[in-house]
Amino acid sequence: MPEQMHLKPVMNANEVNDLLKGAYPQLNDQYDFYQAIEVFPGGCTVRLNADERHLRPGGTVSGPSLFTLADIGGYVCVLSHAGPDALSVTTSLNINFMRKAETGPIDGHCRILKLGKSLMVFDIDIVAGPDRQTVAHATGTYSIPPKRSSNEVK
Amino acid sequence: MPEQMHLKPVMNANEVNDLLKGAYPQLNDQYDFYQAIEVFPGGCTVRLNADERHLRPGGTVSGPSLFTLADIGGYVCVLSHAGPDALSVTTSLNINFMRKAETGPIDGHCRILKLGKSLMVFDIDIVAGPDRQTVAHATGTYSIPPKRSSNEVK
Amino acid sequence: MPEQMHLKPVMNANEVNDLLKGAYPQLNDQYDFYQAIEVFPGGCTVRLNADERHLRPGGTVSGPSLFTLADIGGYVCVLSHAGPDALSVTTSLNINFMRKAETGPIDGHCRILKLGKSLMVFDIDIVAGPDRQTVAHATGTYSIPPKRSSNEVK
Amino acid sequence: MPEQMHLKPVMNANEVNDLLKGAYPQLNDQYDFYQAIEVFPGGCTVRLNADERHLRPGGTVSGPSLFTLADIGGYVCVLSHAGPDALSVTTSLNINFMRKAETGPIDGHCRILKLGKSLMVFDIDIVAGPDRQTVAHATGTYSIPPKRSSNEVK
Repeated sequence: MPEQMHLKPVMNANEVNDLLKGAYPQLNDQYDFYQAIEVFPGGCTVRLNADERHLRPGGTVSGPSLFTLADIGGYVCVLSHAGPDALSVTTSLNINFMRKAETGPIDGHCRILKLGKSLMVFDIDIVAGPDRQTVAHATGTYSIPPKRSSNEVK
Repeated sequence: MPEQMHLKPVMNANEVNDLLKGAYPQLNDQYDFYQAIEVFPGGCTVRLNADERHLRPGGTVSGPSLFTLADIGGYVCVLSHAGPDALSVTTSLNINFMRKAETGPIDGHCRILKLGKSLMVFDIDIVAGPDRQTVAHATGTYSIPPKRSSNEVK
Repeated sequence: MPEQMHLKPVMNANEVNDLLKGAYPQLNDQYDFYQAIEVFPGGCTVRLNADERHLRPGGTVSGPSLFTLADIGGYVCVLSHAGPDALSVTTSLNINFMRKAETGPIDGHCRILKLGKSLMVFDIDIVAGPDRQTVAHATGTYSIPPKRSSNEVK
Repeated sequence: MPEQMHLKPVMNANEVNDLLKGAYPQLNDQYDFYQAIEVFPGGCTVRLNADERHLRPGGTVSGPSLFTLADIGGYVCVLSHAGPDALSVTTSLNINFMRKAETGPIDGHCRILKLGKSLMVFDIDIVAGPDRQTVAHATGTYSIPPKRSSNEVK
């Protein structure tokens, strides 16, 4: 894909993590499982630090845990590139599971395919294991709410 | 869709719930959030008893929580119709989020679109609220591992 | 799914077919392959009259032919329920192919899952053959452009 | 994504095009609309030479035309990497449409995400226009039939 160098993030990974901690406490509750690692023009990298809590029958990281990582990848993209309006919501997500993932760090490499006024489309390669193989791939859409005017009482 | 009356469940909802409790403790951990309500020929009904743990920014039930319900719907279908082999895994899932869901019981009406030897395709309508509106819809695929022969040491 | 009886079509199948003929001549070119059969509150039925032109290797109706039927199903839903603005466009479509379809009439039973101001979500069961088995199932989204004011020069 | 250099194509683009011409005449009928441009380890590039036959209302290349390109991209991947068994079939495909495409060459950059014994997962970036912007992105799955033994009468 052509690089989207015209896209400029307005927040970095630390700022996004702080925002998530405040606005979405359910995400990491008592542990730092999900976090933004890097934000760059047109995309981001997110990580799931998977432990036995994330396993499903068969001893592999569960589909919902990987779905959550994909969803967070899109959320970090929209927060960092469209601004810190935490009310953006996922409208659709399609995920393919390709290989088993064990506990340990699982990284999602996420890129923005389109950043429009009201919708953002992204995809994410999720890699894991010592040889960083692709374990899942997802594509999704976030809706972006209209900007609140600066005079609006929040 | 034509009814799939030729499909016959081999387990009922209680049996599936018991199986999930043993094989997939991470699912409900300390609370009974996700459960099978009914199994019928060609499908099932599953429920998420959503509380504030399942919310995302904006105060609505999170995408990952609804994804998990969809995934469980497919899992209950495959367990109840293809037999209690807990090693079936999701290979893909596509979900659309349509309306906000509040805390309370959220039901997934799940039907088997195809039950083949090695794959099952299903869809699920997820409804919530006092007027039971559709809040999400998903379609997914489970792979079904080859049956282990009865003489095989497990 | 709860019936969506509050949705009221503003065009019937004949009117939609006439509109398609004018606005989308590429669809059926010299033959009436794709057509609306029925429009009802909250959905529609569309048909592909498949002949050998629609086959792929293996002698079955091709994926693109069934995708086109799914896409037309959504288009007929949006035209008939949101009004005859032919500029609505598909933003996403997910399709699962489940069984082989032979030549002959192939019907798509389409329902609107959500009709919002700017987006419509639908799904479609595609059935074929003497026993009308489900051969494919799709879910998709159409964007609905803002209404042009009646004074606007077109 | 890590490169999949261990994947080795067994056919090149010309050989695939010849195979398509024989096995799938409906694809290009009287014109060479769809073709393989390049086959490389782990992926391929395919092209749609779009003219006014491929347009939909609004004067842009239709969804079914782009879906067909995505489907062909996967088909060229499976033919070139798993061998010339034309009976592989698409089991699912998810496509997002992001920008309008005009007539002219439209290229699909396709990569294999997983090549298993019975399934191949791929994705494709579809780019068009003078600045080669991404107009659509798709992810799909092909089933790969068991190899026919060399002694089998066909």
